[in-house]
Amino acid sequence: MSVTSPKGFRAAGTAAGLKTNGAKDLALVVNDGPADLAVAAGVFTANRFAAAPVHLSRRHLALAQSGLAVPRAVVLNSGGANACTGQQGVSDAALTAQRVAELLQIAPHDVLVCSTGLIGDSLAMDKLLPGLEEVAATAQATPKVGQDAAEAIMTTDTVPKQAQLEAPDGAYSIGGMAKGAGMLAPELATMLVVITTDAVLDQATARQALEQACAQSFNRIDSDGCMSTNDSVILLVSGASGHRPEPSQFAQLLTAVAQDLARQLIADAEGASHEIAVTVKGALTEDGALAVARGIVRSNLFKTAMAGNDPNWGRILSAAGTVPAAVAPFDPAKVDVTIGGAMVCQGGGPGVAREQADLTGRVVEVLVDLHAGTCQATIWTNDLTHEYVSINADYSS
Amino acid sequence: MSVTSPKGFRAAGTAAGLKTNGAKDLALVVNDGPADLAVAAGVFTANRFAAAPVHLSRRHLALAQSGLAVPRAVVLNSGGANACTGQQGVSDAALTAQRVAELLQIAPHDVLVCSTGLIGDSLAMDKLLPGLEEVAATAQATPKVGQDAAEAIMTTDTVPKQAQLEAPDGAYSIGGMAKGAGMLAPELATMLVVITTDAVLDQATARQALEQACAQSFNRIDSDGCMSTNDSVILLVSGASGHRPEPSQFAQLLTAVAQDLARQLIADAEGASHEIAVTVKGALTEDGALAVARGIVRSNLFKTAMAGNDPNWGRILSAAGTVPAAVAPFDPAKVDVTIGGAMVCQGGGPGVAREQADLTGRVVEVLVDLHAGTCQATIWTNDLTHEYVSINADYSS
Repeated sequence: MSVTSPKGFRAAGTAAGLKTNGAKDLALVVNDGPADLAVAAGVFTANRFAAAPVHLSRRHLALAQSGLAVPRAVVLNSGGANACTGQQGVSDAALTAQRVAELLQIAPHDVLVCSTGLIGDSLAMDKLLPGLEEVAATAQATPKVGQDAAEAIMTTDTVPKQAQLEAPDGAYSIGGMAKGAGMLAPELATMLVVITTDAVLDQATARQALEQACAQSFNRIDSDGCMSTNDSVILLVSGASGHRPEPSQFAQLLTAVAQDLARQLIADAEGASHEIAVTVKGALTEDGALAVARGIVRSNLFKTAMAGNDPNWGRILSAAGTVPAAVAPFDPAKVDVTIGGAMVCQGGGPGVAREQADLTGRVVEVLVDLHAGTCQATIWTNDLTHEYVSINADYSS
Repeated sequence: MSVTSPKGFRAAGTAAGLKTNGAKDLALVVNDGPADLAVAAGVFTANRFAAAPVHLSRRHLALAQSGLAVPRAVVLNSGGANACTGQQGVSDAALTAQRVAELLQIAPHDVLVCSTGLIGDSLAMDKLLPGLEEVAATAQATPKVGQDAAEAIMTTDTVPKQAQLEAPDGAYSIGGMAKGAGMLAPELATMLVVITTDAVLDQATARQALEQACAQSFNRIDSDGCMSTNDSVILLVSGASGHRPEPSQFAQLLTAVAQDLARQLIADAEGASHEIAVTVKGALTEDGALAVARGIVRSNLFKTAMAGNDPNWGRILSAAGTVPAAVAPFDPAKVDVTIGGAMVCQGGGPGVAREQADLTGRVVEVLVDLHAGTCQATIWTNDLTHEYVSINADYSS
């Protein structure tokens, strides 16, 4: 039930002192191959202020694409995003990769680096470097403690997030860990994700499967509309099962693991009292359905209404109404909205009484039917609560 | 200091019972011309779920454009948005215009209608219709109580908003009133605004001046990123001063009145503890500056940090970094951020100590210098507070 579930992987987590509260803050995931089968793929934030470790990992994966590197390890730290840290940040990320490479006796460009925490502060390298020795030693001594790695990447997360699935025929498996509780929105959320598999895959198959899985999982959650500088989703392939799956079957299983992790992110989102599935159906195109769903999940008025258990469908329509007709054609007079099982809006006007909408549970389903086609899409989001404000008004100080 | 300051206007406000708390909820502004000089212009929400009164007012102004109508009165109600109310809502808006026309002895298409309040509930016409008689009688008996009209359009507003300016030569004046405290974002905010002037203007000049003024005022505030179904900004021209101003001078004065009202909206925004001017300078184009400013003011993480008096510049950069390079080209390694007078980010990395940023005042200035050109733009916004959540979690119930 972790990144060490598939064969061929070691992982460890330790407290290097980057977090002031003494919690674990440094994780290492090692891909032991076999060396000739090891493959990796990554998907990263689209933010123009992408952090130094994101630039480094992108570069190392590009080398891997050209056959000039084989990413064999991912080192991840919380307690500092190493974003917007200038030349110092670039050096720190490089030094981190170099030190891990020495400890594992691999090349520096075979190491990927992920960081999370406050933007704008330089990493405490005097703590991180000794921590690397410790985490590498632990990954050697007790190689199967993926749980510790999952804990070491937490920031405002209240629980570690892990997932694991076996192929139907048991021939290979996929494991994963994730962190992220705020700055949680496409593309991507503030998330670090490492997924491992012992399937045998070529690079192109791994990359395509990862992109497909992200599109259907991490890019369909939007907790607070904010895009991070550090988002990284990395897939490590060991090939240790010796089994080469059919690509579409692998992509499907990978998507399921990614969706499991994505749901765990939404379940633990900062201050949330509801996990809300906003489904837009009856759209002319899937992109149109997504655009309307995104318009709704980005509305603070919708999200505060949900926090108040208030089936305020007018706020859903007013958010949907901001999406240009060219993006999602529909007739406002035909739109239905169902909240918590009750069609409170029918044909763009009042439906059944608001009181019939049941918002008492933690999971709420909002269904918007545009009656303009046959496509649909779901985005998971959260409500906007007092607790969210408290957490984010006080985070950096 | 109100819509009745310029010559040629009457106004009144009354409590018709649309609001359950007995507060004023019905306003009337009458343009007494002279009849051959009366002109009107309007700017309305871009929301596809635009309310019935918005559709009606748009239609009546289109008739005026063609010389087939002369809008002589605006009737405004709070206590119900008459949005997403289907055919009933269309009839109710038409009936309202018709009754006002009878009372003022003008044509129904010479009446504009504005509504604000909860989306999705039909108007209580049994209360509104008798209220119209009362407000029309009051506007006849005591024609200069613009203050009552300003109070009657309040929803979650805590104070009425009014403004007035004289032309430099005293030849004419402009007065205005506005409501809006939430759903406050371009284009436009949840606002109802009526601006009056006794200048002599032709229709095209009035329309162009209003569009220019809105672009520089109501479309440059963004309290909560939510676009309403009812936004209406209406300019009524009486011509009663007999003075025909130079168009650009009038547009400038009108812009100043609109900016005054826009600032009052932000000052009274729901639950806000800060009024924040986000200025983006050094942009290649004004549109690029606006796009970056909009990206920042839409970030809940930036807004909660401000609520916590936390100069968290990383959240400003991460929001700016979501704007595509094609929209606003800049080099992330060159961007400076100044908060409360302190350049806490310089060249995309740490600047002076965060402690030097003074966030204790209600008004906060955030300056982002892209160092990519000479254009700039400012958007006013608010912080995201506990009080905002409380107000909006409880509003409809």
